Amino acid sequence: MPLVGVVIGSRTDEPLVQDTLKALTDLGIEHELVALSAHRTPQKVADYAQAAAGRGIQVIIAAAGGSAALPGAIASWTDLPVIGVPLPTSELKGVDALHAIAQMPPGVPVACVAVGAWGARNAAYLAAGILALKHDKISEAYAAYRKRLREG
Amino acid sequence: MPLVGVVIGSRTDEPLVQDTLKALTDLGIEHELVALSAHRTPQKVADYAQAAAGRGIQVIIAAAGGSAALPGAIASWTDLPVIGVPLPTSELKGVDALHAIAQMPPGVPVACVAVGAWGARNAAYLAAGILALKHDKISEAYAAYRKRLREG
Amino acid sequence: MPLVGVVIGSRTDEPLVQDTLKALTDLGIEHELVALSAHRTPQKVADYAQAAAGRGIQVIIAAAGGSAALPGAIASWTDLPVIGVPLPTSELKGVDALHAIAQMPPGVPVACVAVGAWGARNAAYLAAGILALKHDKISEAYAAYRKRLREG
Amino acid sequence: MPLVGVVIGSRTDEPLVQDTLKALTDLGIEHELVALSAHRTPQKVADYAQAAAGRGIQVIIAAAGGSAALPGAIASWTDLPVIGVPLPTSELKGVDALHAIAQMPPGVPVACVAVGAWGARNAAYLAAGILALKHDKISEAYAAYRKRLREG
Amino acid sequence: MPLVGVVIGSRTDEPLVQDTLKALTDLGIEHELVALSAHRTPQKVADYAQAAAGRGIQVIIAAAGGSAALPGAIASWTDLPVIGVPLPTSELKGVDALHAIAQMPPGVPVACVAVGAWGARNAAYLAAGILALKHDKISEAYAAYRKRLREG
Amino acid sequence: MPLVGVVIGSRTDEPLVQDTLKALTDLGIEHELVALSAHRTPQKVADYAQAAAGRGIQVIIAAAGGSAALPGAIASWTDLPVIGVPLPTSELKGVDALHAIAQMPPGVPVACVAVGAWGARNAAYLAAGILALKHDKISEAYAAYRKRLREG
Amino acid sequence: MPLVGVVIGSRTDEPLVQDTLKALTDLGIEHELVALSAHRTPQKVADYAQAAAGRGIQVIIAAAGGSAALPGAIASWTDLPVIGVPLPTSELKGVDALHAIAQMPPGVPVACVAVGAWGARNAAYLAAGILALKHDKISEAYAAYRKRLREG
Amino acid sequence: MPLVGVVIGSRTDEPLVQDTLKALTDLGIEHELVALSAHRTPQKVADYAQAAAGRGIQVIIAAAGGSAALPGAIASWTDLPVIGVPLPTSELKGVDALHAIAQMPPGVPVACVAVGAWGARNAAYLAAGILALKHDKISEAYAAYRKRLREG
Repeated sequence: MPLVGVVIGSRTDEPLVQDTLKALTDLGIEHELVALSAHRTPQKVADYAQAAAGRGIQVIIAAAGGSAALPGAIASWTDLPVIGVPLPTSELKGVDALHAIAQMPPGVPVACVAVGAWGARNAAYLAAGILALKHDKISEAYAAYRKRLREG
Repeated sequence: MPLVGVVIGSRTDEPLVQDTLKALTDLGIEHELVALSAHRTPQKVADYAQAAAGRGIQVIIAAAGGSAALPGAIASWTDLPVIGVPLPTSELKGVDALHAIAQMPPGVPVACVAVGAWGARNAAYLAAGILALKHDKISEAYAAYRKRLREG
Repeated sequence: MPLVGVVIGSRTDEPLVQDTLKALTDLGIEHELVALSAHRTPQKVADYAQAAAGRGIQVIIAAAGGSAALPGAIASWTDLPVIGVPLPTSELKGVDALHAIAQMPPGVPVACVAVGAWGARNAAYLAAGILALKHDKISEAYAAYRKRLREG
Repeated sequence: MPLVGVVIGSRTDEPLVQDTLKALTDLGIEHELVALSAHRTPQKVADYAQAAAGRGIQVIIAAAGGSAALPGAIASWTDLPVIGVPLPTSELKGVDALHAIAQMPPGVPVACVAVGAWGARNAAYLAAGILALKHDKISEAYAAYRKRLREG
Repeated sequence: MPLVGVVIGSRTDEPLVQDTLKALTDLGIEHELVALSAHRTPQKVADYAQAAAGRGIQVIIAAAGGSAALPGAIASWTDLPVIGVPLPTSELKGVDALHAIAQMPPGVPVACVAVGAWGARNAAYLAAGILALKHDKISEAYAAYRKRLREG
Repeated sequence: MPLVGVVIGSRTDEPLVQDTLKALTDLGIEHELVALSAHRTPQKVADYAQAAAGRGIQVIIAAAGGSAALPGAIASWTDLPVIGVPLPTSELKGVDALHAIAQMPPGVPVACVAVGAWGARNAAYLAAGILALKHDKISEAYAAYRKRLREG
Repeated sequence: MPLVGVVIGSRTDEPLVQDTLKALTDLGIEHELVALSAHRTPQKVADYAQAAAGRGIQVIIAAAGGSAALPGAIASWTDLPVIGVPLPTSELKGVDALHAIAQMPPGVPVACVAVGAWGARNAAYLAAGILALKHDKISEAYAAYRKRLREG
Repeated sequence: MPLVGVVIGSRTDEPLVQDTLKALTDLGIEHELVALSAHRTPQKVADYAQAAAGRGIQVIIAAAGGSAALPGAIASWTDLPVIGVPLPTSELKGVDALHAIAQMPPGVPVACVAVGAWGARNAAYLAAGILALKHDKISEAYAAYRKRLREG
């Protein structure tokens, strides 16, 4: 049963979150990948986000480019922590998505990470850090990863 | 019965769309003002947008700052033309909202106008130009307005 | 007889609006493509824009890069709804055209869409949404398109 | 015993995180406020961050302007989730801090929120959403807050 | 008979070109001030620009904010040198006007100067430097001004 | 004897001003190309700029990237009109050079054109427009060029 | 005899470098303040920079806004370390000066610090760090200052 | 024994500082290259920076992209002059690193140079200019280099 839902706006963005999926796998965190568009399929987004907690999902990672409404749209329908990854898929190369994801209004938070591959990978680590508060195995795996990093 | 729905994310944004309301009134276009938040009250946004066409609304104007998801969220739930006004309400002073509103992904269009008061006023004129295709009185009123402008 | 005029600043921009033309065709919206430059051939722009409504054109889509004056110049000569597509053809890659098209002064609105291919496609859908107010076949075709999108 | 550590670079930034402190208090989340500078007092930052988990801190919120190294510096010394609030305190008004906080390199995540007061408040809500995974009372309080938001 | 035409988009911009008018006066360069809008009164712009050379105008200075089409529009109708002054009148504070004025497409040049008061003043000096090629008195007055500057 | 001096910061920038040289040649304007660096060879810049008017040069075109001090440095040493072309040669791709060239302080004007090839070509046309005030042949050649443009 | 030359483009910028002067005084570093403009008085800049080393100056701090050529111009005439402080004096509020000062071409380095007051103060500390390599008293004073900082 | 420490965040950045190493070598300045990450290995950064002066290092050059905390982190632990080179390694292509490195808060200075290869080379020359105050051979070598530049 997945703990993390990784959501992309369309299947064409799948290569851009491979680093997320790999990092989650490496840390032993069960996850799922779904393609849902905030703008094209808003009901599916609402359904997914509202059902997520009940299905056992504890953190949602959403990646989007341009207007990048996906992370905020998911956050609007669930109280789970939502991590947003700005993608450089539009002609403005991610500065638009960074603005759209980071500048959420008061009341509905999204955790924004870096544009593109850096953020895709860190989204997994941020999810690990969050889940580590509750799941000992993830805590150990993430601590081991960070320890290896610190040792260079 | 209103033809244009003017939507703001919160009542505190009401002064920022006064120019919209005044221009619509001056052109004799019936309209309504509602406060709905894409992020705080997503179901209300979905309900409003889905019901709008059935209630006789023909154009929706949505103003928002920061992540500014409101115009795109409304557009995701309706096929009516949606005009988005980026507001300079965040610390980034509207460049974020401009990016979030203009950079909509393919399939779900939003008509973006200028940041702040310029855009608030032009949103009304753009609505008038759209409605003029179908409503003779609006066509006449808008043509008269533009004619006065052209004469200086 | 075309309902939509698609205007580009020069024939070299033609590939950049192929998505516009295709989407219009797919929705059964008659259209024409003309190359006119706001800066190089201002009289042709004035003539085209002033004659458009009389020729049955109901929406104009104009795509331009850099200073990107074309959409605004057309809007200055006609009361028809004008949709502007910022093109990433200059060294500043479209952020200039986005500013030039979105930041229209009060009185003469332009509907700005996204930079480049995303906006080129959405310009057609925005035109469809506008024309749908008056043309039942376009309304049906556009609704069918959006319904397919919503169903994923 | 505080669950959330709120860290600012200097006492002069204290007014900028009042919204954080108030939102945490309103949700019944125990917290502390400390002033530590990544650049002026790096050892104090290292000491605080390394000791935090052992002291029962589960989430750290760090607010900083300009180079805004504080959230990343804290994250470098601890595996706890770190939320970074970009402050508009430099002459570049927060776009620098947004870049510095969001663009973390792979391996050491920071959860970036909006520039200034919007982000200060959302940092508290994001912390609540994270702590809700483990703490039932916080989960209830945060869910109640979000429910009130959704009801307008 | 004026040698320099100073054009603003509306009378409300008049204070923003006072430095232009004063510098022209100080250098003994006859000039006129007219208010014409590229977007609201395009025919007046076309008429003014086409008639300018015949009326003895040798340089045109045009100041505009936002989309800032005025300098380019004038340049499209005349072969006279056109100097464009970006004004910080929109919510984007002149970065939009700088892009719109500087990024002219090949074939129709505009000489862009700095945003706001700095550019307003330099527009006059640039006009002086251009007119100095032909007018000895202006050449002397401008050389004397520059000499005083160089002497601190 | 050249009327226009085209100055580049280093020989490696020569391809970037080919459009300038070709347009000048096409208009029958005699010109020279020199490589001088504002930062590496300031005395050569001072010497060139101070001697230019005496050698018959009437307009100087200077192209530079990054800090792009060349146009302003030349303008500091001569009262001749100086046209600055921002080049996209640094990692910031010309937005830096645009700022450095356009934002000249009051007293020493530079005529900024577009970044890169667009500006390189327009620099020649702007020079033609300036020289046309005094040189009938250039006036005729430039008018003929612009007339051909206007005819499409 | 001053070790540090603090150079501003005009006397009106004097308040903007008060923090520089005060920090130098506090560290016991002898200095002088001169007003010289890269664009208005280039010969004075050349003279000052060329004479500086011979007069015992070992570090030059230059503050400038907009095109901000001053630090680079000084660096072009001397081999002494030059520290550039971007000032927010233009309508673009320092982002222009940051680009102009930081983006120096290879061969002629300038040490750029933060825009405005932060950079003005750090310019003094950077000068202290440089001079500390050679001057024991400055080394001690600067180390004492930094030690006090580290102790909070 | 090295006088200059060149620090990169990871071995993958090594090609980006080749110009630094080559320029240092050409000027006869002994140096070392080390890979240390501000975020992944903060203790190693602290150790390296605190030990540097004692090991005879007199200038540190640190290159980093994205959040680019490395130069500031090193500067927080040492009083030696630190030169920061912003690298274009993130999706934002160095504008983020420029902001993160240049916008240091008061008290802890970093000398920022240009983004990428330009800055990498100038970092070496800036180090040379600093070391020249104390080391006659470096002073001679750097003066000879700059003299060759000035002679074209």
